[in-house]
Amino acid sequence: MFARHLPGGRRYGVVAGTGRVLDELQHFRFGEEELTFLREHNVVDEPTLAFLGDYRFSGSLYGYREGDLYFPASPIMVVEGTFAEAVLLETMILSILNHDCAIASAASRMTNAAGGRPIIEMGSRRTHERAAVAAARAAYIAGFSSTSNLMAGREFGVPTAGTAAHAFTLLHDSERDAFQAQIASLGESTTLLVDTYDVAEAVRTAVELAGPKLGAVRIDSGDLAAAAQEVREQLDALGAFNTRILVTSDLDEYAIAALAAAPVDGYGVGTSLVTGSGVPTAALVYKLVARETASGKLEAVAKRSVGKPSRGGRKQAFRLLDDQGRFETEVVTTSGVAPEGGLPLLHELVVDGEIVGAEPLIAARDRHRETVALLPQDALHLGRGYAAIPTEFA
Amino acid sequence: MFARHLPGGRRYGVVAGTGRVLDELQHFRFGEEELTFLREHNVVDEPTLAFLGDYRFSGSLYGYREGDLYFPASPIMVVEGTFAEAVLLETMILSILNHDCAIASAASRMTNAAGGRPIIEMGSRRTHERAAVAAARAAYIAGFSSTSNLMAGREFGVPTAGTAAHAFTLLHDSERDAFQAQIASLGESTTLLVDTYDVAEAVRTAVELAGPKLGAVRIDSGDLAAAAQEVREQLDALGAFNTRILVTSDLDEYAIAALAAAPVDGYGVGTSLVTGSGVPTAALVYKLVARETASGKLEAVAKRSVGKPSRGGRKQAFRLLDDQGRFETEVVTTSGVAPEGGLPLLHELVVDGEIVGAEPLIAARDRHRETVALLPQDALHLGRGYAAIPTEFA
Repeated sequence: MFARHLPGGRRYGVVAGTGRVLDELQHFRFGEEELTFLREHNVVDEPTLAFLGDYRFSGSLYGYREGDLYFPASPIMVVEGTFAEAVLLETMILSILNHDCAIASAASRMTNAAGGRPIIEMGSRRTHERAAVAAARAAYIAGFSSTSNLMAGREFGVPTAGTAAHAFTLLHDSERDAFQAQIASLGESTTLLVDTYDVAEAVRTAVELAGPKLGAVRIDSGDLAAAAQEVREQLDALGAFNTRILVTSDLDEYAIAALAAAPVDGYGVGTSLVTGSGVPTAALVYKLVARETASGKLEAVAKRSVGKPSRGGRKQAFRLLDDQGRFETEVVTTSGVAPEGGLPLLHELVVDGEIVGAEPLIAARDRHRETVALLPQDALHLGRGYAAIPTEFA
Repeated sequence: MFARHLPGGRRYGVVAGTGRVLDELQHFRFGEEELTFLREHNVVDEPTLAFLGDYRFSGSLYGYREGDLYFPASPIMVVEGTFAEAVLLETMILSILNHDCAIASAASRMTNAAGGRPIIEMGSRRTHERAAVAAARAAYIAGFSSTSNLMAGREFGVPTAGTAAHAFTLLHDSERDAFQAQIASLGESTTLLVDTYDVAEAVRTAVELAGPKLGAVRIDSGDLAAAAQEVREQLDALGAFNTRILVTSDLDEYAIAALAAAPVDGYGVGTSLVTGSGVPTAALVYKLVARETASGKLEAVAKRSVGKPSRGGRKQAFRLLDDQGRFETEVVTTSGVAPEGGLPLLHELVVDGEIVGAEPLIAARDRHRETVALLPQDALHLGRGYAAIPTEFA
């Protein structure tokens, strides 16, 4: 499994979804309902139904670790098994990784653009209801601080956070009543939404009601840089020096970067995160590259389709570092021989049907932060460009 | 619920997901696991947990019918209920409709571009594994003929279809062996994939093995118009006059339109369908527009956020036709008075908690075909533009 290119002129891709693949693999069975459908619609014949009824992946899976980076042709996952067993996993693995890698790759750019400022993932309502949960997970791997998706909290342990809604303010007889109700329920450390009517008036009311220890205010419209500047001055004048300013409103990595100089303490990102900020799918493909011959030897195979050829042979991958310890080259080899000093990138995930590569989500998040730090500096430019390091075939 | 604009310069939007909203609503409950998570993480307090434990939507839902069209400000769904009951549905409804409407709106353009030629939906592996099932359903509403997603067949009754994979050919000792195995299993009416090595040789082998009644061949690479022309001539020369040509390879509505003059019998569309062909989310928002006051009267409310104001008041919507019977104007009114000759667009979906608007998927598909036929002709242009008909507020 690999990407021929990094869509959208991205400099690097982020591996995400590996943990979800392992979760799904545990439950990847064909039950009575599935078999009945396949039988009644003549999709497959009786021997195949029998095979599916007993299906359990007994092969092996190797993969780049979740949170690691990838580049064009990086073999981020290798599936070994009988053709019948391995081909059934194709769509499941591609779906999960194409989605989650796309989201994480966009999220990583946003995290970089935000510097140390936290980002809340808030995009659930802009994507499919289950994709939303996976997107929150992928964003967390790539450095987002939290998500408004409570299911992602429950299923994956992603920290959850939220602010308030315009509807909550509109429901009340006045903005003052709404703020009072929220503070009474959640305390002075809450985040009040201040742009339903007039921002300056809302900020005044907010500090009057919550006091100078008000946790934060959220601005969701207008020129965010100018608005944040005005609100900061107003908060400081009111003595609310520690009240944070959170901004939202169709932010993407470019808008976040443009707010670097504004007195903003955190971001909420929705649409652009869950849609991969222009790259909603990662262009990963799953290709047969070797088969066992009648004599038991592994033979490289490759298609020759015009413009979309594949490269035969079972791959290994290594990353070479320069003398400053930064990434220099991605080496993909079919020889099995490791280049000197190369970091091995493929790790055991499943061995003979047994899952051995599961890890806590936080490990992927930590790995991502540590790995991004080793990229050449220009890899973090947001403009379109080429892969941050070249891929060489040995 | 409405869209302020149609993203991507689209001329019309397609309502899809309504049936899925009704399905989800039936199961929209908070179970022990959810409540335990909320309690342990202090997300809500005990009275709220008690409320959630008993939650059941007892309000009403009105909506544009699935498969119908929408334009900027069309109130495609109206939710009436207590604030607490209605606000809990916000993310579920937005997620489903933002996703499904985006996919159906893209699919409708592809169906139009294809003329009468059938399109197979093949995008499952390019999107989240559950979004894939919903995408296949939305594409079917908007005129696709079938899907390669078997789960969409099982869950929603979408017709399923498929061809063969390059991996299947590569697995065999020769392309000839692969074709022979496929024909032996699926018969001469099968679709053979002919671009793994050399197209002309593959077509020759295919007809030699299957005979002139070979069902179809699929071309997945190269200049598809030129390749289809060559393959058509070759098939005809071999006497396989009725063997169809199916083309795939990153097709979108523009590529489909460009193939109109080529001897192509059908298309397979993947990535661009499941990603909404550049518009992966429909920009639908869910806004509080009226609240009951202490005196029991319904009062319009609206936020005044800079650049994103909302329009208060409970909406009705009607479509006016010109004297040729084509759509002329979308009328949105808060007066409750229907304009003369206006087709009412909002229909009962849920009344006092009871689902009354469920319908078979084929009804949405039929409605979409009939409704698109009533658009002004220029609405089917693929270029960026304005909404096909204006929205007027009465």
